[in-house]
Amino acid sequence: MSAPKGNALIGQSGGPTHVINQSLVGVVETALACPAIGKVYGALHGFKGVLEENLIDLGAESRETLEAVAQVPGAALRSVRKKPTVEECERAFAVLKRHDVRYFFYIGGNDSAETAHILSEMAAREKHELVLYHVPKTIDNDLRATDFCPGYPSAARYVSLCFLGDNVDVRSLPGIKINVVMGRNAGWLTAASALARQHPDDGPHLVYLPETAFDPEEFVASVDAVNKRLGRCIVAVSEGIHDAAGKLFADSKETDSHGNVQLSGSGALGDKLASLLKARLGEKLRVRADTFGYAQRSYFGAASAVDSGVAREVGRVAARLAASGAAPTGTISIRRESGSPYRANYVRSELSAVAKVTRPMEAELLSGVHDVSPAFLDYLRPLVGELPRAARLSDIAVPKR
Amino acid sequence: MSAPKGNALIGQSGGPTHVINQSLVGVVETALACPAIGKVYGALHGFKGVLEENLIDLGAESRETLEAVAQVPGAALRSVRKKPTVEECERAFAVLKRHDVRYFFYIGGNDSAETAHILSEMAAREKHELVLYHVPKTIDNDLRATDFCPGYPSAARYVSLCFLGDNVDVRSLPGIKINVVMGRNAGWLTAASALARQHPDDGPHLVYLPETAFDPEEFVASVDAVNKRLGRCIVAVSEGIHDAAGKLFADSKETDSHGNVQLSGSGALGDKLASLLKARLGEKLRVRADTFGYAQRSYFGAASAVDSGVAREVGRVAARLAASGAAPTGTISIRRESGSPYRANYVRSELSAVAKVTRPMEAELLSGVHDVSPAFLDYLRPLVGELPRAARLSDIAVPKR
Repeated sequence: MSAPKGNALIGQSGGPTHVINQSLVGVVETALACPAIGKVYGALHGFKGVLEENLIDLGAESRETLEAVAQVPGAALRSVRKKPTVEECERAFAVLKRHDVRYFFYIGGNDSAETAHILSEMAAREKHELVLYHVPKTIDNDLRATDFCPGYPSAARYVSLCFLGDNVDVRSLPGIKINVVMGRNAGWLTAASALARQHPDDGPHLVYLPETAFDPEEFVASVDAVNKRLGRCIVAVSEGIHDAAGKLFADSKETDSHGNVQLSGSGALGDKLASLLKARLGEKLRVRADTFGYAQRSYFGAASAVDSGVAREVGRVAARLAASGAAPTGTISIRRESGSPYRANYVRSELSAVAKVTRPMEAELLSGVHDVSPAFLDYLRPLVGELPRAARLSDIAVPKR
Repeated sequence: MSAPKGNALIGQSGGPTHVINQSLVGVVETALACPAIGKVYGALHGFKGVLEENLIDLGAESRETLEAVAQVPGAALRSVRKKPTVEECERAFAVLKRHDVRYFFYIGGNDSAETAHILSEMAAREKHELVLYHVPKTIDNDLRATDFCPGYPSAARYVSLCFLGDNVDVRSLPGIKINVVMGRNAGWLTAASALARQHPDDGPHLVYLPETAFDPEEFVASVDAVNKRLGRCIVAVSEGIHDAAGKLFADSKETDSHGNVQLSGSGALGDKLASLLKARLGEKLRVRADTFGYAQRSYFGAASAVDSGVAREVGRVAARLAASGAAPTGTISIRRESGSPYRANYVRSELSAVAKVTRPMEAELLSGVHDVSPAFLDYLRPLVGELPRAARLSDIAVPKR
């Protein structure tokens, strides 16, 4: 196929990340330089903005604004959680046609790839020539066919820094500390807590992930054992922990239009685990539970350098591939070439390679029922970058008199 | 009085901060240079370490270790929450005498100042010459007789950065967002959220502090009004909000030995407020509640430059004043000389000026029942330092076709 001539439209979808605007600017700057592409538009609130014809002219933004926006977390085009119906896809196509849009870039996770897939099938049926690229992002790191998902390393960096802080905090005032980390189906982000271990007695001492069935009895016994050994225990828990039958430990009635249960934005799971420990190990036990919340994906200042660079490049590659006429649809996969310094190359994959199905952590990245393996830490370290050193005093004891 | 000759002992007490080790190192480096002071010891876990004679030799630490430790959050000497009994004070004095300790520095908040006060009275009764200085720290900023409390500006910086992130996050995916911020009796830290306002529609749109009685009806009505106007609402809530009679909105059974109710380390308050909004404004409303947790005082990388510098200097001044023989007891007060750049001088105050009674925000720093005044922002800005810019796209609309 040859690249069609026409305008480009970009949308952002799903939960934002620290670096989702790097990808946006990567697409914009490259698309603006492509001869086949005329105007470069943005859809406000993703697919919703297409439906409602709420488009903005990204080509009219100054270079300075684009660069400043690239540094900012959150979706600069604003986002949406929406699975379009067939009727909505038809209305969206009418809008695309009216604005001569021939290139559509959707920056998002696996739900967004699914939306892009539905759109591309409709385009084929309607014989409307539309080049449709998914640009990957998600702090969950649960897309298949890529070394990592842009957004994940920065969220992992934030989580590591929080656990680094908790290590010194809980060493100061000992007790049991439970930290609930985002991650519904995959434990990647919770697992990043393990990067905070610098001293042999550092936490997280226990890491519970949705890849392994959660057994409350094992949890109580393991916390008790660590606490008896060290006088404290720091636990990393994924919000998506569930029993062997798949039933979530923390249940909620609220679901989005993709059928995902609301787990974030509530302290219920942490409080339930804390209550369990107190009931079983004693009401006087000092137990605290923090639920990390939205700062994991939006804290200003946690972006990893590798993540920022790769997110930008993924946007550029998507625009370049789209305008090359190589294939009418695709997503960008990151292939790691070296770990330190991190180097990658970028290839096109089919939308179906990332849509719908998520990628849990592989067995070799786990260790037992409550830890990660050294292989996982080797994988993660170059993505997150160097962490501050948690220096300690030497504790040279003064002899008792 | 003249300065006694003998050893110095340092302890850290209460909740740690980002810069509490700057003060520790400030005391150590200055005490080591004082001719009157022999050895410089640290007590592990504050008063508990004195009682149990768990002392370490801080003079044996390398300059490099001390400098590295100064940068790290958490109490490097480890901390304690303890109100000593008379019997414990007697045992502690026996330890001090055995180790020829003539200088005791207690780095802590108002509870710690109270402990220091009790110790000093006992020293006077026992006619044991003991120079006793309180070195102020608390993220709560609720000590009297000082411009600010070391630890507060860094915690305020972290809170501001979180709200900066929430502004872009909630603008991306609109809804109601409640953030619960630490602060039992005083709203200083919650109020710092207001620094995150860079655009006219930025949050926090409502700021609820313990200085004002919390009225659930007013809360529901105000959230509803903001949400109707902007399509979103970000609320900053202090964990210590209470009704006109002083009854906490979030109640807990756990108290420490100073009688403080446990409020942190639980998501209960945020979830209760979220449930209230859903019950009153509709179950379909997107409401999320985050409780910021211990990262507020221990996140690696949020330390403000002014805070770090002043915390160090407060430690140095305490050691200098103690060894000068000017007065046997005291605490260090910070007096602001200029805001931008921040400059301060340091004076001695009586322990009684900071012990027991806390300092709520003054009326002129508040505005109505759910906001702070411009005077508060003028006070806070130089302490927190420059914040990243939350750049936005210009949103140049494409005409509908």
